[in-house]
Amino acid sequence: MTQPQRRPGVHPFSLRRLAGSGLLLLLLALAAPAQRAEPAELPPGLRDEIRGYRSQVRDIIRHALLEGQAYESLRVLTSRAPKRLSGTPGAAAAVELTRQMMKAAGLDEVRLEPVMVPHWEPGEIAEAKVVAPARGLGTSLPIVPLGGSVATPEGGLEAEVVEVSSIAALRALDPERVKGRIVYFNRAMDPTMLTTFQAYGGAVRQRTMGAVEAAKMGAIAVLIRSVTTLKDDAPHTGAMRYDDEVERIPAAALSYLAADRLSALIARGDTVRVALELDCKWFEDELSYNVVGELRGREKPEEILVVGGHLDSWSVGDGAHDDGAGCMQSLEVLRMLKRLDLRPRRTIRCVLFMNEENGLRGGTAYHEAHRDEMGRHVMALESDSGGFTPRGFTTNASADAKLILEEIASLLVNIDADKVWAGGGGADISPMAVDGVPLVGYRPDSHRYFDVHHSSHDVFESVNERELELGAACMAVMLYIVADLEQALPRNASR
Amino acid sequence: MTQPQRRPGVHPFSLRRLAGSGLLLLLLALAAPAQRAEPAELPPGLRDEIRGYRSQVRDIIRHALLEGQAYESLRVLTSRAPKRLSGTPGAAAAVELTRQMMKAAGLDEVRLEPVMVPHWEPGEIAEAKVVAPARGLGTSLPIVPLGGSVATPEGGLEAEVVEVSSIAALRALDPERVKGRIVYFNRAMDPTMLTTFQAYGGAVRQRTMGAVEAAKMGAIAVLIRSVTTLKDDAPHTGAMRYDDEVERIPAAALSYLAADRLSALIARGDTVRVALELDCKWFEDELSYNVVGELRGREKPEEILVVGGHLDSWSVGDGAHDDGAGCMQSLEVLRMLKRLDLRPRRTIRCVLFMNEENGLRGGTAYHEAHRDEMGRHVMALESDSGGFTPRGFTTNASADAKLILEEIASLLVNIDADKVWAGGGGADISPMAVDGVPLVGYRPDSHRYFDVHHSSHDVFESVNERELELGAACMAVMLYIVADLEQALPRNASR
Repeated sequence: MTQPQRRPGVHPFSLRRLAGSGLLLLLLALAAPAQRAEPAELPPGLRDEIRGYRSQVRDIIRHALLEGQAYESLRVLTSRAPKRLSGTPGAAAAVELTRQMMKAAGLDEVRLEPVMVPHWEPGEIAEAKVVAPARGLGTSLPIVPLGGSVATPEGGLEAEVVEVSSIAALRALDPERVKGRIVYFNRAMDPTMLTTFQAYGGAVRQRTMGAVEAAKMGAIAVLIRSVTTLKDDAPHTGAMRYDDEVERIPAAALSYLAADRLSALIARGDTVRVALELDCKWFEDELSYNVVGELRGREKPEEILVVGGHLDSWSVGDGAHDDGAGCMQSLEVLRMLKRLDLRPRRTIRCVLFMNEENGLRGGTAYHEAHRDEMGRHVMALESDSGGFTPRGFTTNASADAKLILEEIASLLVNIDADKVWAGGGGADISPMAVDGVPLVGYRPDSHRYFDVHHSSHDVFESVNERELELGAACMAVMLYIVADLEQALPRNASR
Repeated sequence: MTQPQRRPGVHPFSLRRLAGSGLLLLLLALAAPAQRAEPAELPPGLRDEIRGYRSQVRDIIRHALLEGQAYESLRVLTSRAPKRLSGTPGAAAAVELTRQMMKAAGLDEVRLEPVMVPHWEPGEIAEAKVVAPARGLGTSLPIVPLGGSVATPEGGLEAEVVEVSSIAALRALDPERVKGRIVYFNRAMDPTMLTTFQAYGGAVRQRTMGAVEAAKMGAIAVLIRSVTTLKDDAPHTGAMRYDDEVERIPAAALSYLAADRLSALIARGDTVRVALELDCKWFEDELSYNVVGELRGREKPEEILVVGGHLDSWSVGDGAHDDGAGCMQSLEVLRMLKRLDLRPRRTIRCVLFMNEENGLRGGTAYHEAHRDEMGRHVMALESDSGGFTPRGFTTNASADAKLILEEIASLLVNIDADKVWAGGGGADISPMAVDGVPLVGYRPDSHRYFDVHHSSHDVFESVNERELELGAACMAVMLYIVADLEQALPRNASR
């Protein structure tokens, strides 16, 4: 409200090319909640058909609150496979653990679908310290390497720090001012954006593209202000890119308060020099898997709805909200419907995608492997915005389909989760957009998400049981009704 | 939705008599969000008048997100006066600190209004341990005394434990089964209630009335399951009552998990004996204060809107959500309007009430002291439901007034805080209901509130900056517009 909501649309042709870059996330983030347009009318028969599911909605919500298992499952996932970085043993543990969870829940067709994933590890050393001026020597600068960064030379590097507020500001500098130096991108999230995803979209480019842009001008390393809403000393990581034409320089995120301290030091006018050491490392690609299980449809099993989240995480924190929550909610949707004996006409397929964070290889591999089935994919729904209190859904669905989703969401009014905004569905399901599959994102409240996102705060204890279980209930309601309606949800135009 | 929402109404005649007992809170809690009735029409002129405040609403929200001070004020309050139990030095510190905050914010007519408050302290010893059977000896039983409990005899007491699920179940027992024993009330909050305040209302009677009911049947002490949604080992305290006709026996709350452990032990069929020691203590009543400051109205300064929360807290935790948040939001409303140069037609008076938790003496004293002004009190708004993400408001206002409040709330749609439910306003302002003052409660999301409520979890770190500041913005919008409308808000019928 304080600034016009931007609705850039999600450009289909760019989606797959952007997959795996931070830009895709940025685009999805920008496709933020917008005001609901004046509704046209649903055909009365369809409206009545949807309202006919009231008692199942009640049963689902009641079951979620009384006997929901998403929270307990998340406790198990985050304690037995807390670190799930693609290509690491932790990710392999998560694959096997969730496969067993699906078997235990009695899902149909439980299987692993192969994905070759990048394998990068942050290493053991991540240190930044002020070496000049003298008054700055004790300054604490907690950092975390950005995901995909190269290491510094052994023993580290040392250089003067040049602070800029953005990539544009960097480009405006004389390259001689940048050459041989450490560029420090100091761009905070805009607090006036009403959804934090929008503010994230406005600040994340320093993280994804900062190293390439700084290296082009001769910089030897990059520091960024963590892209976070929490003003404390935990640094927040996230994906970054290199460009084959440009030298690869190391990059790390400073905690929010460390960024403040560094800026204060620079503002005093002294030349500030920082020593930086990282020992992150790249390895060969590894074989990993998407984990898949189904609730087979009772009448039209060949028509498929996908529900999912991503199984991989960064190795700071335990990936509890990002995206253990979405994975356990997705699995919970199927467990719950099966337990309630609510088997819809169509098949609901749970896909726990591997490698969203640094590659989107799982989402891409799923789309490739199921290309022949895309025409029978009725909808895909992702939960990858945290396990917070429910608010509603975003969707790229056509106007006709959106009316149906809105009518279904209206059944969630008593838990305040009845809003449907125009927007994306989620990174992992985004490759399906080109085939006209309507995409839906589950949307919890966003205020706390970037407090924990990609940091040591993203642990099980930051998840609230009721919020998580009610989210699973919202997803189950949306999926069950769409999967069970007599007519399939109208598709989007293929691209 | 899973159970019909109960709307018992708030019976005016009982409000003042119940003030200070837990029952008032219970009643208010039961007056939970209910579906909005089909709206009648606002007169178009009034609708347009309200919509004319859009730009001020934008300014308020933007200011709250960019320069809001509620979070920083709460940090100061919880670090300098973390323990604010009525009658203690901590409460006195909070009075002086907030008086100075009001002066620093440049409020008008800053003053202390005297209130005699009860003075009870929990003491240093709160221990429960299983002494039989042998297999139960190591059972950990974290407890906290209930607010107002008498001490055990020095050295403690020891007795067999009798578990009951409710006061009704206790009454159904043979008194011989109760006499000389410790009664353990094991009633969890009903997770299927959609607002946790409703579930709290359904479980809190064991805490408020358990000791009286058990003592009537000869019990020597009471343990209760903490009234909480969080399944961990932090016990949650809260107010309890005694009856002059019945012996006063000590009472304490077990953590949720301790209650589980005790029940499991009892379920094995052994006679379970527990040793209990508490050294809580009652003192003489003390002089304390409500802290008051105003933003004087520019045209009708004699017409008054009250905004407030309660300054006292329990001594477990730091009273961050309950109700440091509401106090700092209330003060922030005035600071922000003054800073934005938004001085409304009528006066907005911030009242930080003393002694909500164990007496409601501040709310009662305010009503007594300002009896002559009640006819000029246009509205009172309280924030005492935690500092969580905004959802809307509850109100006891008449249908005509509610339409106005709904139209104002609709200006908050972009921060999802546009709902207005029938319900109470808050304990401290409830005495004004008899005079027909429309009462409004600020309503944040309720899912996390009883995780922290009255426990060691209620600390500053559990509060999110954006959520708290946006809450203050919502309150400011509601208060500013009502205070500035040409016509005063329609009053309720006096009682």
